[in-house]
Amino acid sequence: QRRGIPEAILAEGKTPAQVVALAETALETTDRALLTRLSDEQFAALEEAIPETVPDATFDRWSSSLLIRTPDYERPSLEATVGLVTAGTVDQPVADEAEAVCVDAGATVDRVDDIGVAALDRTLDQVDRLREADMLIVAAGREGALPTVIAGLVDTPVIGVPVSSGYGYGGDGEAALSGMLQSCTVMSVVNIDAGFVAGAQATLIARTIDAARADGSGDGK
Amino acid sequence: QRRGIPEAILAEGKTPAQVVALAETALETTDRALLTRLSDEQFAALEEAIPETVPDATFDRWSSSLLIRTPDYERPSLEATVGLVTAGTVDQPVADEAEAVCVDAGATVDRVDDIGVAALDRTLDQVDRLREADMLIVAAGREGALPTVIAGLVDTPVIGVPVSSGYGYGGDGEAALSGMLQSCTVMSVVNIDAGFVAGAQATLIARTIDAARADGSGDGK
Amino acid sequence: QRRGIPEAILAEGKTPAQVVALAETALETTDRALLTRLSDEQFAALEEAIPETVPDATFDRWSSSLLIRTPDYERPSLEATVGLVTAGTVDQPVADEAEAVCVDAGATVDRVDDIGVAALDRTLDQVDRLREADMLIVAAGREGALPTVIAGLVDTPVIGVPVSSGYGYGGDGEAALSGMLQSCTVMSVVNIDAGFVAGAQATLIARTIDAARADGSGDGK
Amino acid sequence: QRRGIPEAILAEGKTPAQVVALAETALETTDRALLTRLSDEQFAALEEAIPETVPDATFDRWSSSLLIRTPDYERPSLEATVGLVTAGTVDQPVADEAEAVCVDAGATVDRVDDIGVAALDRTLDQVDRLREADMLIVAAGREGALPTVIAGLVDTPVIGVPVSSGYGYGGDGEAALSGMLQSCTVMSVVNIDAGFVAGAQATLIARTIDAARADGSGDGK
Amino acid sequence: QRRGIPEAILAEGKTPAQVVALAETALETTDRALLTRLSDEQFAALEEAIPETVPDATFDRWSSSLLIRTPDYERPSLEATVGLVTAGTVDQPVADEAEAVCVDAGATVDRVDDIGVAALDRTLDQVDRLREADMLIVAAGREGALPTVIAGLVDTPVIGVPVSSGYGYGGDGEAALSGMLQSCTVMSVVNIDAGFVAGAQATLIARTIDAARADGSGDGK
Amino acid sequence: QRRGIPEAILAEGKTPAQVVALAETALETTDRALLTRLSDEQFAALEEAIPETVPDATFDRWSSSLLIRTPDYERPSLEATVGLVTAGTVDQPVADEAEAVCVDAGATVDRVDDIGVAALDRTLDQVDRLREADMLIVAAGREGALPTVIAGLVDTPVIGVPVSSGYGYGGDGEAALSGMLQSCTVMSVVNIDAGFVAGAQATLIARTIDAARADGSGDGK
Amino acid sequence: QRRGIPEAILAEGKTPAQVVALAETALETTDRALLTRLSDEQFAALEEAIPETVPDATFDRWSSSLLIRTPDYERPSLEATVGLVTAGTVDQPVADEAEAVCVDAGATVDRVDDIGVAALDRTLDQVDRLREADMLIVAAGREGALPTVIAGLVDTPVIGVPVSSGYGYGGDGEAALSGMLQSCTVMSVVNIDAGFVAGAQATLIARTIDAARADGSGDGK
Amino acid sequence: QRRGIPEAILAEGKTPAQVVALAETALETTDRALLTRLSDEQFAALEEAIPETVPDATFDRWSSSLLIRTPDYERPSLEATVGLVTAGTVDQPVADEAEAVCVDAGATVDRVDDIGVAALDRTLDQVDRLREADMLIVAAGREGALPTVIAGLVDTPVIGVPVSSGYGYGGDGEAALSGMLQSCTVMSVVNIDAGFVAGAQATLIARTIDAARADGSGDGK
Ligand SMILES: Nc1ncnc2c1ncn2[C@@H]1O[C@H](COP(=O)(O)O)[C@@H](O)[C@H]1O
Ligand SMILES: Nc1ncnc2c1ncn2[C@@H]1O[C@H](COP(=O)(O)O)[C@@H](O)[C@H]1O
Ligand SMILES: Nc1ncnc2c1ncn2[C@@H]1O[C@H](COP(=O)(O)O)[C@@H](O)[C@H]1O
Ligand SMILES: Nc1ncnc2c1ncn2[C@@H]1O[C@H](COP(=O)(O)O)[C@@H](O)[C@H]1O
Ligand SMILES: [Mg+2]
Ligand SMILES: [Mg+2]
Ligand SMILES: [Mg+2]
Ligand SMILES: [Mg+2]
Ligand SMILES: [Mg+2]
Ligand SMILES: [Mg+2]
Ligand SMILES: [Mg+2]
Ligand SMILES: [Mg+2]
Repeated sequence: QRRGIPEAILAEGKTPAQVVALAETALETTDRALLTRLSDEQFAALEEAIPETVPDATFDRWSSSLLIRTPDYERPSLEATVGLVTAGTVDQPVADEAEAVCVDAGATVDRVDDIGVAALDRTLDQVDRLREADMLIVAAGREGALPTVIAGLVDTPVIGVPVSSGYGYGGDGEAALSGMLQSCTVMSVVNIDAGFVAGAQATLIARTIDAARADGSGDGK
Repeated sequence: QRRGIPEAILAEGKTPAQVVALAETALETTDRALLTRLSDEQFAALEEAIPETVPDATFDRWSSSLLIRTPDYERPSLEATVGLVTAGTVDQPVADEAEAVCVDAGATVDRVDDIGVAALDRTLDQVDRLREADMLIVAAGREGALPTVIAGLVDTPVIGVPVSSGYGYGGDGEAALSGMLQSCTVMSVVNIDAGFVAGAQATLIARTIDAARADGSGDGK
Repeated sequence: QRRGIPEAILAEGKTPAQVVALAETALETTDRALLTRLSDEQFAALEEAIPETVPDATFDRWSSSLLIRTPDYERPSLEATVGLVTAGTVDQPVADEAEAVCVDAGATVDRVDDIGVAALDRTLDQVDRLREADMLIVAAGREGALPTVIAGLVDTPVIGVPVSSGYGYGGDGEAALSGMLQSCTVMSVVNIDAGFVAGAQATLIARTIDAARADGSGDGK
Repeated sequence: QRRGIPEAILAEGKTPAQVVALAETALETTDRALLTRLSDEQFAALEEAIPETVPDATFDRWSSSLLIRTPDYERPSLEATVGLVTAGTVDQPVADEAEAVCVDAGATVDRVDDIGVAALDRTLDQVDRLREADMLIVAAGREGALPTVIAGLVDTPVIGVPVSSGYGYGGDGEAALSGMLQSCTVMSVVNIDAGFVAGAQATLIARTIDAARADGSGDGK
Repeated sequence: QRRGIPEAILAEGKTPAQVVALAETALETTDRALLTRLSDEQFAALEEAIPETVPDATFDRWSSSLLIRTPDYERPSLEATVGLVTAGTVDQPVADEAEAVCVDAGATVDRVDDIGVAALDRTLDQVDRLREADMLIVAAGREGALPTVIAGLVDTPVIGVPVSSGYGYGGDGEAALSGMLQSCTVMSVVNIDAGFVAGAQATLIARTIDAARADGSGDGK
Repeated sequence: QRRGIPEAILAEGKTPAQVVALAETALETTDRALLTRLSDEQFAALEEAIPETVPDATFDRWSSSLLIRTPDYERPSLEATVGLVTAGTVDQPVADEAEAVCVDAGATVDRVDDIGVAALDRTLDQVDRLREADMLIVAAGREGALPTVIAGLVDTPVIGVPVSSGYGYGGDGEAALSGMLQSCTVMSVVNIDAGFVAGAQATLIARTIDAARADGSGDGK
Repeated sequence: QRRGIPEAILAEGKTPAQVVALAETALETTDRALLTRLSDEQFAALEEAIPETVPDATFDRWSSSLLIRTPDYERPSLEATVGLVTAGTVDQPVADEAEAVCVDAGATVDRVDDIGVAALDRTLDQVDRLREADMLIVAAGREGALPTVIAGLVDTPVIGVPVSSGYGYGGDGEAALSGMLQSCTVMSVVNIDAGFVAGAQATLIARTIDAARADGSGDGK
Repeated sequence: QRRGIPEAILAEGKTPAQVVALAETALETTDRALLTRLSDEQFAALEEAIPETVPDATFDRWSSSLLIRTPDYERPSLEATVGLVTAGTVDQPVADEAEAVCVDAGATVDRVDDIGVAALDRTLDQVDRLREADMLIVAAGREGALPTVIAGLVDTPVIGVPVSSGYGYGGDGEAALSGMLQSCTVMSVVNIDAGFVAGAQATLIARTIDAARADGSGDGK
């Protein structure tokens, strides 16, 4: 495994056969395969092929992301919670990609959907819950204002994920990306639609927190 | 007077002598001169020259905007209120330009400064007051999220003004402009730093409302 | 209902089944559903499904926008007129989206098509009619000069809508958008192809005018 | 002389001494020197140096362009008229550069300033006069709508010159450039602020017309 | 007919039925119809429909451009030659659009294909021929160097047409467009792929030359 | 204090007097003032004014960032280490801004300068040391490859800071920004030159780790 | 043959029939045809047609590039080695295009795939081998860091090829292109996805080296 | 010395004292210092300081580049010639930077200035001379057509250097950069104004050729 980079297979741009082969190798060597940006056709190929080689594999799917495990696989578990927030329905597939990565790494994910600032009451209703998480991933398209607003209300680190859900000027995610980079509150940002990177970065932070909890003096300092 | 365009002298790119001459002509023909984007040098030239030609002229200044009136000038008065909002200190000169135009046109201006979403409590504290205005102008730089948040909380039309107050990617106002154009709430927008245009558009709406109030059936329908 | 944001279902990016479900919920709770950016397939699904749940629903269609109402629905009525102007045939679907929103809100819409500045006589012939409206929405693609020319001829507020109807440099609507933002006359602007936002902003202005007419002193001041 | 390229010295980026030397060489070899984009310092250096080498030289200046001629120089004369139009005061220096080139080439220049579309009556008042010219150069900044409107009203070729006179999005001349390239009427375009190129292209057309007039059958066909 | 704008029907974005209807109206009122950017399907629809309404119509086709004439149509004839040059095979459809417009207007077209600067001998071989034309249209994609080189070799006006034939950075025609705008020789430019505009501008120049020839003193001055 | 946003005064765009006033208020209310993007003139004004109001204030300076504390100020202390890395000398002022924020918040900063990938040996020599930190901030201009390389070698979270230190295409920091967003390893990113934001985000992570250490079971799990 | 430009047929944008005709002409006149950017359909057409005209032709294929030779063709041979490196699987088709050109020219190609910097050990393992080549072509997408890292480790010239393999901001190859242009090590660059140009440039260098080896004094200076 | 990167001190952004110190260290350790992008002030500081520490140092200057050597320095000598070409006067400082690097490395430089394609005769006159060099560096601003034309006429590798010498759209060097990347002939490219990188890349090729000449069989194969 590459150091510090959660291992996943990016299915986009590969043939179904190539995807199946890569998944089979991963299962054979690590009892686990995480795939992202799967087309329906690629998913169908996996659903058909894998049960033949690994009859009792478990399939967990989040939109176009898929986690396959053999019965032998020992899931990691991290004592850390990632709050995973979306502004609108259209941002959910991007968040799903992040969720797959975090769950696979053993972090607890607290998912809160559809609390964009157009309905600010719904946003504010969730603030107490969001404050419980160790860190937040916030995915938002169009003007991408949600991570800015949330980062002003919580004390924990926020990772903004711009989503390419608009149309017209900046609608390919550049309005959201530049807005998050310019945010008057504090956050760090990943590429447009890069749910995988957000989830992986959250995983790295979660591991650090988990290690700190394990190491901790326990003196409640 | 050009139809429907509030008459102002754009000082930028003119010599002090040219600016003085234009102001003198305006005062002579209309008893009034509105100037925008004045440098300190241009302002000093006006302060020296105008009192010689129009001894009892009145000077009203908003940052780099200036309204000069002779005693004969009859100010218009509009039965309409423009709420004028800024996110941060750095947005105030742009809002000042809008204020000069609205005041000159006779609208009531309700100015609320420094309520950017980084301190959301301060934003929310002003919502009831903002709902009182007939329309709002909201100036914001960096990610420009304030008009989006406000437009979700009020029922009146909002005009967003992006401000070139950031640095880095999109910091020249393009992050704020694209964010307002992509807003998940409803607003219309003017060019980056275009306080004049926002004020002029608000003035046109204010005149329509004023006329409607004058025409109105009064039946409280 | 979200404050001040006309409620509509953006069909783009949803499955026909999702669109039907959202329309049914809207009809059930508010006796009305407004849908925009419908594909023909989504439209067909609605035409088939809705009459089963709401047998006597009324369908009004403007290009890819659709307003469905139950017999119980009480239409609002606003004492305000929106002039809705297009430069060319290709701009009409964008204007249709704005028209659907304004009509749904109860405003009177005065639609004037195909008066782009390439045939300036046709533009000038309509000026008196355009002056009658309380405000104007002007949709134009390519170089987007029409709203600039009209805004110089009328005293009422103009909302420019850039349309992505060109090709080559700036043909995706950025020439029209930047031209309207740079306009030497006064207007405010919405995003490229954002007929919905233009209609919604006009609706908010129309409501303000309608309220002013109702409140008015009636003294013809 | 380079074929078909009016010979001018681009002063920008050269030292005063270099500019003087180039002008002296041009005068010595061709009895004439045309300079563009001169700074005041470069102009002063020329005014001091040239009368020493060429005591009776004639100086003609248009803003930052300068034509120097010895008494021996025989001016060309072309039977062709270039209409040279500006939208606003700020566009005049760019038009001056074009004028210098056309006058130097011997074309008649009919200059019409400050008829931008914000005051459309002033534009329309000049149409009959503009129709008299053999071709038009139209310089306009901000949204650059003037050449589009004029090209719809005349039958002669129009060359659009975008000017970098705005601020905000597209204010560096890109709004005007893209608007002219997207124009719904017919024109060709030169680079932003390229008065020299517009004048040179008009000169090439003028030479062709002049030759056609000389060749012509005279049968008034 | 709009003043100075050659009348053509832009087929792109219209249904075959709409295209047929527009062509029939044009034939009925002017005995002529010029169509550009036709798809094969639109072309087939015309080929089927027109002979029914206008049995003896003539069809002339240049790639996706089509000129239909009734037997009654009297073709104009202009005493002026347009040299029409392409750099490579891929630029030919854009030049075809220009050719259709010029031929329809009655100008003589001298077409020279595939003389891009990668094989400079082939370019130079054609220079004498190119010098014979009254003006040149030069279409070139990728880096668009051909019009720059030709404009340095001839004395007549050159209109550059950038073509979107590349890939990678600037391959959508922006490399060619910016290169032509920056040209160190003199030319004017039209939008990317805008063969129609280049042909129309050449037509306007050709009409001016034709009129000059008709008016000319014939003294061979 | 705004929730979760380290409190700093952005000096850029303020007068020396405004900066002094803001610093005095901060010192009065919180015994501490952190200022960023100070000019030399603003710094001199603070050095002169503050000792008069707060005679025994401590000054700590990092390039254009300044931390002023009264003797009463109780510094926080966090059990967390931020590795702070630069690629070249030119990136150091940006890293200094981040360092000021982290030190002010009480985190331990391990600073490693000038280990850009052009001298990869120097980069690799530091890897063991970098692995010791709880998280890394890596500032790099030009092509910004350093955070990508480091993130592939360590297991801890990396925050990339693009620096505007190049020239030519992408030299304003956009090459580095886009490179970090596209990184084939995992990191999150802040705006170009945004040392403050990187330091603030690292501070938020450090607080979470510090809390985890305090809470921890101490069972060394 | 054009001087110094390896002769290839760019299949993209041509019909299968045109591609076959061009290949046949090339085979007839030069006993060889190199084709790039072939679609499967174009490839099938060649596979069917060529054996009929040239029964014993040899086909060598690299992804979408194809080299066809008659038995009479005498292959050139160059005493020079091109190291051809890719960062990831997705970069291989672009490298294949370069390989086809180099092999066709007679250079030795040493191909090393999939050594991107995310797994830096794999990169470093190949450095000794890479140092053996006379020059390197390095193809990389996303952030394009691989050529920067390699160019810092070898003494031979490196040609970077940016690949359009990312998504989001800069994912169309502009992040990789700008990163390579900004590289803190030394390389030259070709257009995004321009494997052909990289291979052709390497071929020109290889010919120069081959000639130098042939000319050389052999004194082992 | 870093492998394969010619060692130079980039003076831009450093104080005169820092530049002097870096030069002194370089002279002390390697008897040589190469500096680029020197301001006049930095140059003056070196001229004053160096003769004190190294009394008999030699100074060679090319515009803003400077090579200082002690008498002990043994210059390398490469059996390879770099042809160094500029299009216009304004491109010379960029070429000077490349020349300094090549001369310092011991290559022979054959410099040919001011042969831009606007005067194609002058370009063609030099072709035979250009063919003598082992490789060419061609610097050109504005539309950057010169390297395209030359690369079509010679068989040796060409490195294009785009120069930021234009104004308006693409005038910052992006027109020239994109034109060279899109070139219909074959070349590789460096960043805008990157004379240093072009010279360094040429140096690496020259070293390879020099080694090949030394190794060569001498059989004149
Ligand atoms: N700050 C401003 N921004 C944009 N337009 C302005 C501004 N101030 C004045 N104007 C407009 O510019 C016109 C005056 O331009 P001028 O004739 O050059 O003084 C006025 O009629 C206004 O429409
Ligand atoms: N203002 C200008 N803009 C663009 N090109 C110009 C301008 N003035 C002169 N030129 C061109 O630049 C060339 C002179 O360049 P130079 O040799 O540097 O003086 C002339 O031959 C013209 O083609
Ligand atoms: N260098 C900086 N870059 C970006 N944001 C900053 C910087 N320094 C301070 N800030 C933020 O800007 C706010 C202060 O802005 P102001 O009220 O204008 O002083 C602080 O709360 C910080 O969040
Ligand atoms: N993949 C490619 N990318 C860029 N240029 C190419 C490519 N393949 C061939 N070429 C060039 O394009 C020319 C062939 O163009 P064509 O005449 O359209 O087949 C050749 O002479 C090559 O210089
Ligand atoms: Mg890592
Ligand atoms: Mg108006
Ligand atoms: Mg609202
Ligand atoms: Mg010429
Ligand atoms: Mg016309
Ligand atoms: Mg926070
Ligand atoms: Mg060559
Ligand atoms: Mg190297």
